[in-house]
Amino acid sequence: MSANRLIYLPLGGAGEIGMNCYVYGYGPAGKERLILVDLGVTFPDMDTTPGVDVIMPDISWLEARLDRLEAIFITHAHEDHIGALGHLWPRLKAPVYARRFTAAIAKLKMEEHGHSTASLHVVASRPETVEAGPFRVQFVPVSHSIPESAALVIDTPAGRIVHSGDFKLDPTPMVGEGWEDARFTEIAAERPVKALMCDSTNVFSLHAGRSEATIREPIRDLIKGHSGLVVATTFASNVARLKTLAEAARAADRTVCLMGRAMKRMVSVAQETGVLTDFPRTVSPEDAGDVPRGNLMLIVTGSQGERRAATAQLSRGKYLGMELKKGDLFLFSSKTIPGNEREVLKIVNAFSEMGVDVMDDAGGKYHVSGHANRPDLEHMHRLLLPDMLIPMHGEHRHLREHARIATEGGIVSDIVTNGMMVDLTGDAPKVVDYIETGRLYLDGSVLIGAMDGVVRDRIRLALNGHVMVTVILDDDSDTLGDAWVELRGVPQNGRGGPLVDALEEELNAFLNGAGKKLLRDDDKLDEALRRIVRQVSMEEIGKKPEVTVVVSRLMAE
Amino acid sequence: MSANRLIYLPLGGAGEIGMNCYVYGYGPAGKERLILVDLGVTFPDMDTTPGVDVIMPDISWLEARLDRLEAIFITHAHEDHIGALGHLWPRLKAPVYARRFTAAIAKLKMEEHGHSTASLHVVASRPETVEAGPFRVQFVPVSHSIPESAALVIDTPAGRIVHSGDFKLDPTPMVGEGWEDARFTEIAAERPVKALMCDSTNVFSLHAGRSEATIREPIRDLIKGHSGLVVATTFASNVARLKTLAEAARAADRTVCLMGRAMKRMVSVAQETGVLTDFPRTVSPEDAGDVPRGNLMLIVTGSQGERRAATAQLSRGKYLGMELKKGDLFLFSSKTIPGNEREVLKIVNAFSEMGVDVMDDAGGKYHVSGHANRPDLEHMHRLLLPDMLIPMHGEHRHLREHARIATEGGIVSDIVTNGMMVDLTGDAPKVVDYIETGRLYLDGSVLIGAMDGVVRDRIRLALNGHVMVTVILDDDSDTLGDAWVELRGVPQNGRGGPLVDALEEELNAFLNGAGKKLLRDDDKLDEALRRIVRQVSMEEIGKKPEVTVVVSRLMAE
Repeated sequence: MSANRLIYLPLGGAGEIGMNCYVYGYGPAGKERLILVDLGVTFPDMDTTPGVDVIMPDISWLEARLDRLEAIFITHAHEDHIGALGHLWPRLKAPVYARRFTAAIAKLKMEEHGHSTASLHVVASRPETVEAGPFRVQFVPVSHSIPESAALVIDTPAGRIVHSGDFKLDPTPMVGEGWEDARFTEIAAERPVKALMCDSTNVFSLHAGRSEATIREPIRDLIKGHSGLVVATTFASNVARLKTLAEAARAADRTVCLMGRAMKRMVSVAQETGVLTDFPRTVSPEDAGDVPRGNLMLIVTGSQGERRAATAQLSRGKYLGMELKKGDLFLFSSKTIPGNEREVLKIVNAFSEMGVDVMDDAGGKYHVSGHANRPDLEHMHRLLLPDMLIPMHGEHRHLREHARIATEGGIVSDIVTNGMMVDLTGDAPKVVDYIETGRLYLDGSVLIGAMDGVVRDRIRLALNGHVMVTVILDDDSDTLGDAWVELRGVPQNGRGGPLVDALEEELNAFLNGAGKKLLRDDDKLDEALRRIVRQVSMEEIGKKPEVTVVVSRLMAE
Repeated sequence: MSANRLIYLPLGGAGEIGMNCYVYGYGPAGKERLILVDLGVTFPDMDTTPGVDVIMPDISWLEARLDRLEAIFITHAHEDHIGALGHLWPRLKAPVYARRFTAAIAKLKMEEHGHSTASLHVVASRPETVEAGPFRVQFVPVSHSIPESAALVIDTPAGRIVHSGDFKLDPTPMVGEGWEDARFTEIAAERPVKALMCDSTNVFSLHAGRSEATIREPIRDLIKGHSGLVVATTFASNVARLKTLAEAARAADRTVCLMGRAMKRMVSVAQETGVLTDFPRTVSPEDAGDVPRGNLMLIVTGSQGERRAATAQLSRGKYLGMELKKGDLFLFSSKTIPGNEREVLKIVNAFSEMGVDVMDDAGGKYHVSGHANRPDLEHMHRLLLPDMLIPMHGEHRHLREHARIATEGGIVSDIVTNGMMVDLTGDAPKVVDYIETGRLYLDGSVLIGAMDGVVRDRIRLALNGHVMVTVILDDDSDTLGDAWVELRGVPQNGRGGPLVDALEEELNAFLNGAGKKLLRDDDKLDEALRRIVRQVSMEEIGKKPEVTVVVSRLMAE
């Protein structure tokens, strides 16, 4: 009989910022009862995942152990924590626990996918406790950039774990509970903290974080100082910011119009769940046209330059009847996430061409981050004094730096990345297994594996273009007609004229001279024709396209 | 008879950072004699130009007026100013003028493309003067991040123009002439400056720029403090930085090894042209293995995360016999250009996994920009007191801001972007024509137009995947065998099983029921089959792939 052990296994979020998915287990080795914390998505990009809609963690490890899974806990309603719930819940079918606002968003996602919401449970904040097998879990309110974010206190027979979720130290967050040190000193006083799994996003930000309240005045002053139309964008889920912006509008005698489905949804869920109580009256985009421009403020989606969101649409011209012009103000009350710079700057330049004044986060006056900076992280370490610190929610560089400062501060710490199963039972995390992890792509309506080759083929098509060769053979393997070439994404003309002509000439010369043995062998024929296409293309256009050869063999009827 | 006029027409670089290409003309309207300043490239990205090697300005306007082109002047040897010379010179065949170092790089480019270098002329700095039709042109040394950068003084019967080129105000640039205000006050005193065409890159940087000399000590201290292998990257052409890095290595008893073809080429050209006189001795990568790691420093290419450059190679494992490990130091003595963040961070994370300590520009200790910041630009305005200021070398947002501060400072200024021809003869720039401009893509060995559809097709293939349908008909338009489907970059399985099966079933059902009229009409048949593929795909996999239909008609023999 093996002793019970406490394990931690990130399936996503550890070694990347995105698709958070963390497993905890307690019990005999290989028979641990399991809980899952968060089930998020990450977003595709053209360089590595063209055409993909959204990316999720591969949960096959959990699927193979469904009988051991007790529950799913969602810390907050950001897409990188909750976004995969609608897609993947049917594979897990475990009860889902979340605070009120988060659960409301979860409900919408479940309904969108046609799942029953009977498994969804609203949990009040600590001391309310969820029992899930050997785990007792409490939700602790933390400040972040979405309402009702929570850290989890996870009690096990092997000790108490605090899973920080995403957090910042904001005593005046404008919406929801402010940060209170006492909540965490109490947690540590009640029972020593064995391990703190901690947000690492802003470990490279060396100054203490600032409160949401500090940008209220600058935003108010900015908007008051403008006479034209004012438009502001931020993350749709940053309800506190939406409130800050809307109140600044009201202070400047401007009526607010929300644009973008995600934003309207967030505001209405926040209002329905009682999180947002005194949001200024808004007008619909249809009615906004009747409001004088100097008395109107649009709050819109698309702060990251998303092509279909309101910001990008406005940068291309009229959107829902509104059009920006010279002297208008556009405020990015947001930070550009690395990788989105190009799209955001394209929009800024388009606004510049229209004569619109663009303000952004430069100078830090109009945006604050939702994550704890380095001094704040160190403060959190000191509040909880955990035996171990395991950095999460970060790329490898963040995890490494976070582990370094924890170690410097005298706390045992180690880097645990996706797929590493660590045993927390002893005095230090001990790697006990490496799990095959990966990513699932939602592509249209289909889930495909990152290793299926579909996306790899698309990247190759994008880089090299595609040449298709059709050859028809009769039942005696004589060619019927000539080989036929089609190009897609390949230059039409090479050094010596049309590429199609050069290719067909060479292919037909080869087919005419080819022996029956080769013509009868599908694989060899395919390979020979492919090689000719690549060679001729290299000579003619200096690159080797992707090649598809279709050999049709017509049988006598 | 029309009066003479002085015109300015950017074909690239005005409204973007990259592919600088500026035309000046003097003479009767439509008969102006022309000179070209710079002939640069810009770089492709996966989002908009997958598979493209390099991007150049479309110079068709100039090609149609070759008899009027007097000369080409190159301000400095950065790729965005000289990179298209080898590709496009044969279309222009005008004499090329540049300073010694720039001309040496130009020579290599011409030779690589097999062009004669007889048209290349080395020009000394002012007062040496090139006469080109009605233009008299002088090269004025300016500090930048490459040796022998120059501003141009362009004298015309209609007045004196100063074309700033890329510049910063650096009195101690480590390599080459330091910045001297006197050079420019003298120019303005000699003859009033009608127009200043001015670098706008750093107009949003509000503090005064710093000298190359200010980072010497921090880099030296950083390297001295490390005991493992030290690797540093910067732009290959930043010869002064290479010197700073190499001298810091020497001060720490480290032998330097240069890695990357571009870097070795820059250093040897700088030495051959006498620009670089006392560069520390280097060892080859082959010999570097014999040097103890604590006495070695690699200076490598790839600061922007370029996949094939040394930095990226080292992040993936062994490169030229060298391999990084725990405790080594990697220094990015560079800034990440917007759009390259993702690739650079991927490398930083890979180094983090190896346990390598990575230092970057955060804090500004180890890198300074090569461009004038806002206070420096204003200083330049005051030195020259031009009648007009026309911002160049910037995206629209940079040009707009630069024009704004010039106007605020009392100088007439306007935004002139690619394709706008302005008449500078009067007191203010006056738009007289809009020229169709664009981009040429080097794709493999072929130049294709941005509007040719080749790249658009590749993007579609990347986003949607490709379905190919083959149908064979006899001379009576009866189908021979079944329709055949091939997928590339498309998920194999849909809702109801293999996508290929669903597609072939539907296509064959359609073909079996189709009338002769349709089967005889290539276009209608193609469109019908295409529509079926898109419909079935939408149902099965939730997206519409690109479709190629190949209908082969076999004639009786």
